[in-house]
Amino acid sequence: MDRLECHFCGRKYPLNLFEVFCSVCREPMLLSSTPRKRLLALDRSLSLEKYQSFLPLAHVDRTLSLGEGNTPLVPLERIRRRHHLPPVYAKNETVNPTQSFKDRGTTVAVQKAVALGIKCIGTVSTGNMAVSTAAYGAKAGLKTIVLVKEDMPADKIRAAGVYGPILLKVRGDYGELFSASLDIGRKRGIYFANSIDPLRIEGYKVTGYEIFQQLGGRVPRYLFVPVSAGGHLIGLIRAFLDLMEEDLVADLPVFVGVQAKGCSPVARAFAGGKERYSRFRRPRTIAQAISNPAPPGGNLTLKIVRENKGMVMAVTDPEILAAQQELAELEGIFAEPASATVLAALIKLARRQRLNLRDEVVLVITGSGLKSMETVGRLDIRVRQTSLSRLEKTLRIVGA
Amino acid sequence: MDRLECHFCGRKYPLNLFEVFCSVCREPMLLSSTPRKRLLALDRSLSLEKYQSFLPLAHVDRTLSLGEGNTPLVPLERIRRRHHLPPVYAKNETVNPTQSFKDRGTTVAVQKAVALGIKCIGTVSTGNMAVSTAAYGAKAGLKTIVLVKEDMPADKIRAAGVYGPILLKVRGDYGELFSASLDIGRKRGIYFANSIDPLRIEGYKVTGYEIFQQLGGRVPRYLFVPVSAGGHLIGLIRAFLDLMEEDLVADLPVFVGVQAKGCSPVARAFAGGKERYSRFRRPRTIAQAISNPAPPGGNLTLKIVRENKGMVMAVTDPEILAAQQELAELEGIFAEPASATVLAALIKLARRQRLNLRDEVVLVITGSGLKSMETVGRLDIRVRQTSLSRLEKTLRIVGA
Repeated sequence: MDRLECHFCGRKYPLNLFEVFCSVCREPMLLSSTPRKRLLALDRSLSLEKYQSFLPLAHVDRTLSLGEGNTPLVPLERIRRRHHLPPVYAKNETVNPTQSFKDRGTTVAVQKAVALGIKCIGTVSTGNMAVSTAAYGAKAGLKTIVLVKEDMPADKIRAAGVYGPILLKVRGDYGELFSASLDIGRKRGIYFANSIDPLRIEGYKVTGYEIFQQLGGRVPRYLFVPVSAGGHLIGLIRAFLDLMEEDLVADLPVFVGVQAKGCSPVARAFAGGKERYSRFRRPRTIAQAISNPAPPGGNLTLKIVRENKGMVMAVTDPEILAAQQELAELEGIFAEPASATVLAALIKLARRQRLNLRDEVVLVITGSGLKSMETVGRLDIRVRQTSLSRLEKTLRIVGA
Repeated sequence: MDRLECHFCGRKYPLNLFEVFCSVCREPMLLSSTPRKRLLALDRSLSLEKYQSFLPLAHVDRTLSLGEGNTPLVPLERIRRRHHLPPVYAKNETVNPTQSFKDRGTTVAVQKAVALGIKCIGTVSTGNMAVSTAAYGAKAGLKTIVLVKEDMPADKIRAAGVYGPILLKVRGDYGELFSASLDIGRKRGIYFANSIDPLRIEGYKVTGYEIFQQLGGRVPRYLFVPVSAGGHLIGLIRAFLDLMEEDLVADLPVFVGVQAKGCSPVARAFAGGKERYSRFRRPRTIAQAISNPAPPGGNLTLKIVRENKGMVMAVTDPEILAAQQELAELEGIFAEPASATVLAALIKLARRQRLNLRDEVVLVITGSGLKSMETVGRLDIRVRQTSLSRLEKTLRIVGA
């Protein structure tokens, strides 16, 4: 039987989709790892099937999947050369059915929801998670509720709205909305799979297993991932702990969580040696997808990162924008600002300490820039005008 | 040695990236299939490597790849049930590095360009091809020219512009721009990989091989694909012809090319039994990505489709919008209107003739709706307003 466990007090609870926090510690719970025979089924096509025995899924229903995962691990040769770095790879999670890593978590949450007979799911989100939940809810034929903040721009809402969920703009504090959604969900049988949902976190583990496989069974020396609520980083750490438990790897990567300096409650607490973060006042950053001033998984992230000798860094908006531009112009990857933080952090770390040139680095690129085109205006895009008759001359002038 | 061949007169030419049309027939040429030992290397991770021996590439440079291909084949169970169809699958090409099938062609073109020492590439495009070429050009460190029409909207240009190409808006006729680009390219050593570039078409073959593998070595009974210039459909047909030549399959699918009725020069010529299409006057359709009134590959498409017992259909804008909505709301796939044409055509065909319920159907979904959000306004997206204190009541009212 699947169980939940509080990582702070060790209490165990039976899995219940409507309970996310330990009733005593008020911290998010995680799936309790039950010892069973784990097997890699690499001949299967769906990523969920390949790593099913590492997931809390007794069965994978293929009709609920959009073919998420199996994303490319792309060598970043030009960035490596420019910054004199060790081998760097992008784990490109934008190559997912709804262009973000959220699909990894949503697919596990929806598989479980359907297996347990749930008819209605929901989420509280400002972006990628809304889109992902709406898409998988549609695919499964579930009634799907998307709760968004009052000030969410129309085009962001549309990207989720195309899948036909029930869209509600809710006036009031975002943090309170998070708690309210869980309370109401419990009463009305709506499974709100929010950012630190334990099943979502299980889904994020798959990215870790894939990285291990794609590196030919090696562990990268450094693994960089953006941190908002922290669920993604926690999932990746758990993946490598699983692999270690199975004696498939001998070491862990150095896990580097990255926040935007303009909203960095977890990085600040980490730097200050604190066990608990405090709410970040006046958040202000271009990295909207990770701008979370009071992340519900913040303390758990701090604890798990420290236990596994990881770190949490912060990078500034100018560093983020420069990294976003380099990823696009040197490597052909259009990341959203929140995802570009990982490259900014790597460059910062490499300046601060000499990295061994034989170490391998993996940057997890979590979401596509396409869903936040409004930030692109800040990149310098020049369009020249010409006519058919002057085309050849113009090309000569621009040096082509 | 790679050679080009005119499919009309049979003349052969040495491969030359600057020559696309037969100098006598003025029709696009295709790679001449040279007999060599072909092997499936399914243990490789890059799709280019898996099917390399079917492609005109002596070597695959991994640093030029963005990990394109290996896209999911997704069963469309809810659409199948609603319309009483045989098993239907979406080959979801939106799950590519730049969210469209164009990456398949661009990657082969760029591999060859770099192998031949080309320093500058370009394209003439209104959308997906510009984005794809700009991304792969950036990855390869090539100077990249993107020529667009004068009236192209700013947000479309930005989606390509983020990769840092040289962007030129050109006044004048779009068809003339296509020819002019090839003339100037020849003179200045710029390889313009446009829509019916023979190397692009080779790249599209890989989608066909993947479908065959993903169906467990079976051939679908029907394969639907949108038709603009026709290169994509031609590539898919060539893929199955290759598999037949290798005795891997015994039959071909019924290939169904689909155009939007509001710009359907090829479908009209097909229906009229004509060998050559005529320019489509006053094109008007929501399916912008396939709105090509004088496609340079139109006649070649007609010829190859007929030789292989395929067909070309047309569907109306209301049919396209309904199909786009069904793909999103029933199956969680957000296709651009041009891609939704394939579902509209399947529904139309199924009404016209009874399909055998044991036949398998594959719909190729070519591009993501995210790059043409302006069309989404036409879908009916309802956003409700509420407050934290009224949230539970609102959820009850909407039946959640």
